[in-house]
Amino acid sequence: MPQVKVYVTLKPTLLDAQGRVVHNALNSLGYDNVEQVRIGKYIELELTGGSQNIERDVREMCEKLLANPVIENYRFEVVK
Amino acid sequence: MPQVKVYVTLKPTLLDAQGRVVHNALNSLGYDNVEQVRIGKYIELELTGGSQNIERDVREMCEKLLANPVIENYRFEVVK
Repeated sequence: MPQVKVYVTLKPTLLDAQGRVVHNALNSLGYDNVEQVRIGKYIELELTGGSQNIERDVREMCEKLLANPVIENYRFEVVK
Repeated sequence: MPQVKVYVTLKPTLLDAQGRVVHNALNSLGYDNVEQVRIGKYIELELTGGSQNIERDVREMCEKLLANPVIENYRFEVVK
């Protein structure tokens, strides 16, 4: 059963407000060596059936639902 | 400048409500071959300074702030 790991990240030019908050929190906890924090999504999909067209299907899923291609980048890897 | 990639996932025994919603949405879009969806967080940290104690520090950050160890698992990799 193929498993797909999808990583969705905010485009680098955009301000990551959530990451900024976590960054400040880490600094407050005493971790002064943290320079930047960016937060994205990690999605695990389990698929049934054959492995043909998986890459095409997952790319479609990302474009349509899993990521917002206007503001986010995505990449994925298929684990057989 | 060392970069750390942190993956935070809900423990496998817990119901992933967000993943369930995305699963249903994917099925509605016609992707019937999706068996399970689980959604976690993907966090990129950029650190300054030397690379000593990085693993210990990041483990602490995860335990204290980045993950909730009661309901979540985490793993990370250090990219030099």
